[in-house]
Amino acid sequence: MSIAEAGEFGLIARVVARLENGPTTLLGPGDDAAIVAAPDGRIVASTDVLVEGRHFRRDWSGGADVGHRAAAANLADIAAMGAVPTALLVGLCAPTDLELAWAEDLADGLAAEAALVGAAVVGGDTSASPTLTIAVTALGDLGGRKPVLRSGAQPGDVIALAGRIGYAAAGYTVLSRGFRTPKALVEAYRRPVVPYEAGPAAATAGATAMIDVSDGLLQDLGHIATASIVGVDVHTDAFEVSDQMRDAATALGVDPLQWILAGGDDHALVATFPPEVALPDGWRPIGRVHETRGVTVDRKPWSGPVGWDHFR
Amino acid sequence: MSIAEAGEFGLIARVVARLENGPTTLLGPGDDAAIVAAPDGRIVASTDVLVEGRHFRRDWSGGADVGHRAAAANLADIAAMGAVPTALLVGLCAPTDLELAWAEDLADGLAAEAALVGAAVVGGDTSASPTLTIAVTALGDLGGRKPVLRSGAQPGDVIALAGRIGYAAAGYTVLSRGFRTPKALVEAYRRPVVPYEAGPAAATAGATAMIDVSDGLLQDLGHIATASIVGVDVHTDAFEVSDQMRDAATALGVDPLQWILAGGDDHALVATFPPEVALPDGWRPIGRVHETRGVTVDRKPWSGPVGWDHFR
Repeated sequence: MSIAEAGEFGLIARVVARLENGPTTLLGPGDDAAIVAAPDGRIVASTDVLVEGRHFRRDWSGGADVGHRAAAANLADIAAMGAVPTALLVGLCAPTDLELAWAEDLADGLAAEAALVGAAVVGGDTSASPTLTIAVTALGDLGGRKPVLRSGAQPGDVIALAGRIGYAAAGYTVLSRGFRTPKALVEAYRRPVVPYEAGPAAATAGATAMIDVSDGLLQDLGHIATASIVGVDVHTDAFEVSDQMRDAATALGVDPLQWILAGGDDHALVATFPPEVALPDGWRPIGRVHETRGVTVDRKPWSGPVGWDHFR
Repeated sequence: MSIAEAGEFGLIARVVARLENGPTTLLGPGDDAAIVAAPDGRIVASTDVLVEGRHFRRDWSGGADVGHRAAAANLADIAAMGAVPTALLVGLCAPTDLELAWAEDLADGLAAEAALVGAAVVGGDTSASPTLTIAVTALGDLGGRKPVLRSGAQPGDVIALAGRIGYAAAGYTVLSRGFRTPKALVEAYRRPVVPYEAGPAAATAGATAMIDVSDGLLQDLGHIATASIVGVDVHTDAFEVSDQMRDAATALGVDPLQWILAGGDDHALVATFPPEVALPDGWRPIGRVHETRGVTVDRKPWSGPVGWDHFR
């Protein structure tokens, strides 16, 4: 059955039936708006849009995969502020011939990813559109913590990373060359594994700046460098290239360092910490903050790509 | 200049430069997420998507008009819960040849409509897309009020309306027949005039159920009837058909009552109040809640259209 056959209210009813409230959901889907607990008295909020052909392909990812990834991209933004996600709102624009089952899988993926952090899908909207588009807004609670902005890095700070990096970009390259294996890389692209807890932990430990790596490590570190008016240097010997990644890189004729330094989509977290701070669990050092502005790799300029521009 | 020429970060910089923080904006655009004050400890949140060709046409509405309407549709949902809007987040998916000036006008319209209620655009995301799509999420604060759901209407309650109704639908018909006047009707479609303050006022006065009329009065009242397990009867003699609307209806061969009862887009608020409650300023009675389920007009079934289905 297509979503046009189900009708707008049929689609909504079928999707909502698959959702469960979370611990902070005071009013879930079905009214003019949702109500979510905000015990901190401040709400952290972020929106991401995913467009078919740009951010996902239905022949590469199932509905549940896209749901996991759409949720992860947003929940990582909340974690990167030092907050704990509480809720997702989802706008779905879809061709009328979209299979209802695909939309249901999408909802399942969104809900399952949100549930990993105790959040829930609390509301949304749907419309027909020639272009399959998913707009996700995530809300989160700071739990009394000071938010970690991009602008607080200080010369001398240690740059640290939490989570996998380069795996999703490797999976993307694999898929874009027409392959479906190695499965671990392809799955890393389809469903990023985000270190959500590392965000609030970094805030508690005293991180001075933080960002989620969505567009590419060097590009996203560049945002910290610009906002903090500092320079950042990444040490390539900090990155372990797994055998699987190295083998795939060799087979595809790619420098695996490019996946690590310029690949997006893993939604790792990168943060800066004062040198005296003991890094919390899950964080490992990958570089240093300097006074000289700009982004360098092993103290040298990087001539390769740094990340994505979604309009080029 | 097109948005592709500006680039993703150029577009974002140009748009963000036009935005101002509101009184509840703790951190505006530019980081991984925004931070908004939520003094009530509960956040009200709603998402709407607008797709070109379905919800707006660029030959009918300018960028600022679309911004006003996109914001109004969401802010009205917040008001319909009895809350005061605090923030908007905006996802913009646009063809790469979209004029940067159109996107700037859109941002101006969104910001100006939000400013009417003391809210601000605090964040967003952009992507290229073949289909111009705007996803707006609105946040709001209940200020200690009990939220007004769709499910609380009781037999004997008075149905009351706040705001204009039928004007936007009349403007839509005018535009769809290729006309550009009467200007008052066309402008009502382009920029709805929403009675935002009437929402919290109704909550304070003791409204038992409330909804914003986005799809059509009878259809939206039907949502209250279903959720409250009651019947609603609308009294047509409660509606004044302005001379302008009557003249346009005659010229176009339309029953103006159809615009009033089944037209969406005005974002009026409709609520139910216990009969002993004095209606707050801006509210006028238009019907009664009954035990017999369903939606009737002057105690008779309505055979005309009731509203929109966004997939048909």
